[in-house]
Amino acid sequence: MRHELRLEAFREEIRKNGLEYAIVTKPENVFYLTGAPFAMGSGGKVLFFRAEGEVELVVSPLDYEETAAKGIPKGVAIEMVAFGESPLEAVIKRFRGCEKVGIEDGFLTVSIYERMKGSAHLAPIGGCIERMREVKDDLEIGLIRKAQEIADTAFQKTLAELKEGMSEFEAASVLEYYLRRGGAEGFAFETIVASGQRAVFPHGMPSARRARGGEAVVFDFGVRVGGYCSDMTRTVFFGTPKVEAIDVYCAVLRAQESALAVAKAGISGRDLDRTARAEIESAGYGERFVHGLGHGVGLAVHEGPIAGPKNEKGLMQGNVITVEPGVYIPGAFGVRIEDLVVIRENGIENLTASPKGLTVV
Amino acid sequence: MRHELRLEAFREEIRKNGLEYAIVTKPENVFYLTGAPFAMGSGGKVLFFRAEGEVELVVSPLDYEETAAKGIPKGVAIEMVAFGESPLEAVIKRFRGCEKVGIEDGFLTVSIYERMKGSAHLAPIGGCIERMREVKDDLEIGLIRKAQEIADTAFQKTLAELKEGMSEFEAASVLEYYLRRGGAEGFAFETIVASGQRAVFPHGMPSARRARGGEAVVFDFGVRVGGYCSDMTRTVFFGTPKVEAIDVYCAVLRAQESALAVAKAGISGRDLDRTARAEIESAGYGERFVHGLGHGVGLAVHEGPIAGPKNEKGLMQGNVITVEPGVYIPGAFGVRIEDLVVIRENGIENLTASPKGLTVV
Repeated sequence: MRHELRLEAFREEIRKNGLEYAIVTKPENVFYLTGAPFAMGSGGKVLFFRAEGEVELVVSPLDYEETAAKGIPKGVAIEMVAFGESPLEAVIKRFRGCEKVGIEDGFLTVSIYERMKGSAHLAPIGGCIERMREVKDDLEIGLIRKAQEIADTAFQKTLAELKEGMSEFEAASVLEYYLRRGGAEGFAFETIVASGQRAVFPHGMPSARRARGGEAVVFDFGVRVGGYCSDMTRTVFFGTPKVEAIDVYCAVLRAQESALAVAKAGISGRDLDRTARAEIESAGYGERFVHGLGHGVGLAVHEGPIAGPKNEKGLMQGNVITVEPGVYIPGAFGVRIEDLVVIRENGIENLTASPKGLTVV
Repeated sequence: MRHELRLEAFREEIRKNGLEYAIVTKPENVFYLTGAPFAMGSGGKVLFFRAEGEVELVVSPLDYEETAAKGIPKGVAIEMVAFGESPLEAVIKRFRGCEKVGIEDGFLTVSIYERMKGSAHLAPIGGCIERMREVKDDLEIGLIRKAQEIADTAFQKTLAELKEGMSEFEAASVLEYYLRRGGAEGFAFETIVASGQRAVFPHGMPSARRARGGEAVVFDFGVRVGGYCSDMTRTVFFGTPKVEAIDVYCAVLRAQESALAVAKAGISGRDLDRTARAEIESAGYGERFVHGLGHGVGLAVHEGPIAGPKNEKGLMQGNVITVEPGVYIPGAFGVRIEDLVVIRENGIENLTASPKGLTVV
């Protein structure tokens, strides 16, 4: 039923823009509107959307069985193209040059656009489905909560096995083992385990480097459940940390807690970012907080709304966002602490259960 | 030195097309030309390429430290934009409306194109860097070989622990544990473990389903080393399989071996696909081989050249491709066997060491 409602809401948008058709190919958007399974790297499914009448989900033989087995909403028909044919080309062929067709201009590439533009009048639909996705319903929040529980449980088990001298590879192998064993359908993004100087790289992939002597190790990871992502970060010290690292850790934690304390429906992404940034600035590390405070999480691990300096819009009930301040001292160390929260009318529901006190293994 | 040579080859292409500049933002392409580290989901780096003179790599503060630490080739300068500024916007501002600028039309989105098109004369460069990437040098092949060794070793260790009644989650957790422990910097794509009826879905993600009673379980996985991917598939039976499954397994294996036997520089992707497909057709399963035979593997796990019905061009020495026939019987089971091979003058170097005889656990 939820898919039918989403399709109807999208139909409203299409009509409002005076369009007769829309072509949806971004995998998360196709999944959101129809529930058709999406796998990374597949992405060949095309939703051929009519403002009036039946919607078609056009798939290759490769994707047909899984799509059919999953079931699709009322009012949607599955069409399978022949082996070797492209679902998108099959849809383009239906146009006669004069139809008004909405396209996902934030996803379609220039070369596909050039191939399509002679076939119909193409009009951008912008991020209209992405904006619908920003406010989650209870079922979606339930899946994200479950994903985050798997992540928290796996991290607690991992903590019990971490010890000084372990390599980033070893630590990641233990963590991912427990994530999968706990029911992760996939990883929401490539697991980050970055120690010592490497913790300065916010996107540091695991390496053979061994952590010891009080070094900070950043663990940033997430899983997928029912298509929905989790996202969390903890920074753990391998051995007793130096005073500066403790100072930074406390500043980052204060920054995060101050933001969590004021987060609720209505506050803008900019003001939330500013709350955390002010704490870090007053501790003297403002220059070293080199990214925004957070981002929305859902079918994509990075989606709207953004909790950063450029978002002046108020957050809404049902947004699910990360709150993840970080301080990175080049050549030395980095600290980041990240929780995943649901924005509610009068505050937040924090989905993240892992403790945040300074942890030494 | 190899990056300098690649930059020079790209410069030649740009000049040949009468362009003064090019903008490269696809993460694999930026990495290929400069060696600047790329992380999934980052992708904010912009290579501002001049046909004459210095090339600039424009990055956000978030990416600056890691990029600087890695080092960049001669003739490239790192430029860091201010916090909150977009590297791409910073580059667009430099144009005065009349410059001839090459863009990656197969990667840039329509909305970015619309924002840029008033600033300069934009011209497509198509897949010109992707085509350079198709032929690997010895260093690249060495990294792919290493990635494939990690995958083979982990799979052998996993096989020893698989047993009837294990869930897909459990099997995946063991496999990924050994992959990481063996030195995987990341996974090349989301690991597929699909059993029984689910093995019919070529992109089936692991689930809680337990495999038993002679069911086929498809394991399709890969890792990254130095940015380069591996890719392999084995199908293992959990318990003694039924006769039809054995028949299909043997047909798929014969198909793969017949393709491996004829693969070498000069044979077209179409003819290689046809060789394998003929074997499967003669076994009566032609309709059930619903994808192409294989694809190139490198910085992307799916890249050129394609070993499929539509590629009439001859394969080249130094191409690295998968050879992965599969047969999927809806409602019943699926079998796929995949090796990763280097195309050589007179044959192939098979990078995959895992045995392919019918395996029952």
